[in-house]
Amino acid sequence: MRDLRTNSADDPPPSIGADLHLELRGPRLRAGLIDALREAVRTGRLAPGARLPASRSLAADLGVSRNTVVEAYAELVAEGLLSAQQGSGTRVAARVEPRGAAPDTPRTRPARHRPTYAMQPGSPDLSHFPRTQWLTAARRALTAAPHDALGYGDARGRVELRTALADYLARARGVYAEPDRIVVCSGFHHGLALMAQALKARRVRAVAVEAYGLDLYRDLLTNAGLHTPPLYVDEHGARTDDLARLRGVGAVLMTPAHQYPTGVALSPGRRTRAVDWARATGGLILEDDYDGEFRYDRHPVGALQGLDPQRVVYFGSVSKSLAPGVRLGWMVLPEKLVPEIVIAKGYGDYMSSTLEQLTLAEFINSGAYDRHVRSMRQRYRRRRDQLVEALRRSAPGVRVAGMAAGLQTVVDLPCGTEGSVVLAAGREGLAVSGLTQFGYEEADSGWRLPERDALVVNYAAPPDSAWAGALEALCRVMP
Amino acid sequence: MRDLRTNSADDPPPSIGADLHLELRGPRLRAGLIDALREAVRTGRLAPGARLPASRSLAADLGVSRNTVVEAYAELVAEGLLSAQQGSGTRVAARVEPRGAAPDTPRTRPARHRPTYAMQPGSPDLSHFPRTQWLTAARRALTAAPHDALGYGDARGRVELRTALADYLARARGVYAEPDRIVVCSGFHHGLALMAQALKARRVRAVAVEAYGLDLYRDLLTNAGLHTPPLYVDEHGARTDDLARLRGVGAVLMTPAHQYPTGVALSPGRRTRAVDWARATGGLILEDDYDGEFRYDRHPVGALQGLDPQRVVYFGSVSKSLAPGVRLGWMVLPEKLVPEIVIAKGYGDYMSSTLEQLTLAEFINSGAYDRHVRSMRQRYRRRRDQLVEALRRSAPGVRVAGMAAGLQTVVDLPCGTEGSVVLAAGREGLAVSGLTQFGYEEADSGWRLPERDALVVNYAAPPDSAWAGALEALCRVMP
Repeated sequence: MRDLRTNSADDPPPSIGADLHLELRGPRLRAGLIDALREAVRTGRLAPGARLPASRSLAADLGVSRNTVVEAYAELVAEGLLSAQQGSGTRVAARVEPRGAAPDTPRTRPARHRPTYAMQPGSPDLSHFPRTQWLTAARRALTAAPHDALGYGDARGRVELRTALADYLARARGVYAEPDRIVVCSGFHHGLALMAQALKARRVRAVAVEAYGLDLYRDLLTNAGLHTPPLYVDEHGARTDDLARLRGVGAVLMTPAHQYPTGVALSPGRRTRAVDWARATGGLILEDDYDGEFRYDRHPVGALQGLDPQRVVYFGSVSKSLAPGVRLGWMVLPEKLVPEIVIAKGYGDYMSSTLEQLTLAEFINSGAYDRHVRSMRQRYRRRRDQLVEALRRSAPGVRVAGMAAGLQTVVDLPCGTEGSVVLAAGREGLAVSGLTQFGYEEADSGWRLPERDALVVNYAAPPDSAWAGALEALCRVMP
Repeated sequence: MRDLRTNSADDPPPSIGADLHLELRGPRLRAGLIDALREAVRTGRLAPGARLPASRSLAADLGVSRNTVVEAYAELVAEGLLSAQQGSGTRVAARVEPRGAAPDTPRTRPARHRPTYAMQPGSPDLSHFPRTQWLTAARRALTAAPHDALGYGDARGRVELRTALADYLARARGVYAEPDRIVVCSGFHHGLALMAQALKARRVRAVAVEAYGLDLYRDLLTNAGLHTPPLYVDEHGARTDDLARLRGVGAVLMTPAHQYPTGVALSPGRRTRAVDWARATGGLILEDDYDGEFRYDRHPVGALQGLDPQRVVYFGSVSKSLAPGVRLGWMVLPEKLVPEIVIAKGYGDYMSSTLEQLTLAEFINSGAYDRHVRSMRQRYRRRRDQLVEALRRSAPGVRVAGMAAGLQTVVDLPCGTEGSVVLAAGREGLAVSGLTQFGYEEADSGWRLPERDALVVNYAAPPDSAWAGALEALCRVMP
């Protein structure tokens, strides 16, 4: 599948893209490219020292944006698999040991080369996962569980978890929830995949998306056959006023509490307009409340869903509040949608472990979830304050944008410097993301996102032991 | 969605099917019908005492087989929601309390009416789930896990689990497995859904299936746009000789170790012919080894996969060996298929909990899995012996078919009695399945399955406390 030719420095490979037998139209385009390159290096098909094609030509070759290639290279530089020297291009690092060289240990893989400081958005601080409390909840849950809890069970998920979530979400996020209208899923991505199927079955043709967001989710919708017209995003959030002008839109995907990744909140006026649009057209609002618990300057604004539970589908998960590895999320649905989502779920039979569901229910009911969120909120808040202060002192040319909330922030850079800062960070072992990769404009829509050079920095992810080093490295690469 | 009209006994409802606003083309047709009827009873739309339409007319109305309706009714009779009296037809049980009658407790649902004895195939004895040992494994696994085990991780699943499985499957099932070629999924259904996507991407048009099997899996393939020509099943298993005559078949789905549900083993000659076909045509064999560990008369025959790991995809799970609620399964793939399945997995983003994966790895590595399988094997063997002996004594007109293996067996009945026995069992609070619901013939294929009246009886599922009663009830309803 992954067949990258070995190239010497003197033989630049114009056809490397054609030889990359990877389906690059699917979701995770950038991740797919990274994997293919990593595999080619590991297996020795790309030899140590070999020069990679210029990002511009590989991008043209693969039909992807240049930024995708630049950031894939940067990620692998950060992992230590590639090296980038000014003037010499990007090469396979000299010290990489191809896996083919050790055939006598076929069952062991070389440990993944990871960046020293992983600050791409996505992960919370995994080193503070409450292991002891989680095990206590698991023990209590499994001891108390009736035998039938170990069977296939309700496609919506265990009623114990749905009941615990209904209480928690009402209390913490102002969500109007009843256990019967909650469907447990494995995370937002899974929930959105189910939603896409249900929308297709309803003959919806388009889902509006924010002009900044994860390509992963846009690709998921596109692959389901849905159009994804973008809504412009400014300092008041997504321009929901524009919804009325978009044709054939049956739903809109939004991050109202904390726009991802630009970090602004949807203004009260635009919240109202979104709901007005949904009521007037029968459309649905898909509210991705990915980090709603983490607000540092005030009490979190309640979920949009509270304004109209019949028009808003609320999505949440433990991926930011606990850990992605737990793979538990939830959707709070308008009543009519429940059977449609249950049918969609049946097609793939993705049910979550009932033991984990019962464990999370116990973890919430015992108060351990609230305590953990409170403790992480203080921790992340302190981190963000330190980041703002460090950049203020050492990099007056940059600006921290967005609210005091969440796990990541946007750092605005001088015009034209984003790509080189991401690369420089990679050389320091610091993995951060450029904002450009989150931007989205339709080729034929007639409008363009304004140029904005910025980093998206996850200050939550590094463990305590790496935090000071990560912050120093970040300051060092600032222009 | 579920809008069944309330009908009085004097007003038989010819259009009840049209009012059943449920998508009945999807998988789980019978389950969907059961749910819709249950909901209609619970909400009071079908009032206590109301007569349901005759199975024949509802079947015609819905465009489903009569057996589907008969068995849906039988299931609900067993649950106590419906009652069936000779001569009076099927009615809503008089004592059912519609949920609508208690609006002051919207968050509690009436407990599901379950049959007293659940002996439909599917579930192991959940009362013997090794709770203490599982918690011990969970504690060890979570204590030892590196922080990054709590992140999103490898799409194939945790390497710890894949390594443990490779060793176990080689040892217990003769599977040729390397950790790199194993992909963790949530169970066979999930694995098959991924496989269907990969086959579609390879432009495969048809997957041959055994003429006896679960409609759930056939429907999954059909919904993915694949044709499913049936292979006839006799006492030597599926007629793999016929594969060469089927056109455009790119894969065949089989249960070689223990044909589901007829209970025979694929003969050595037919095993060879299946592999020959795969080699000659480039086709794939999808081996569903759902209960391969449970053989009582001899050491289990090794998996077909061992004959040609490049042509056979091996599927297994803990659903029969531990409990379905754990939701962990695995696929052992030909090397080339791994990236294709990983891509398919990415579309739905269903990953299994990493904590559960690590727990299962520890559970296997510590020997607890082997011990549990060994203990359940003895238990189920004893149950099967008791079943055979009880029927021999009390019902000389029936015959227990198939091998001494697995969790369920086929009990052959006198011609023409299957439907009435299933109904009679329902009245005794005993839920069993008729063999007819597992049979599959294509309308235009020109051949028909021979008439075979039989029950599929899960002797593994009842907890010890219910076993004697279940066995007595079964003997009582035998013709």
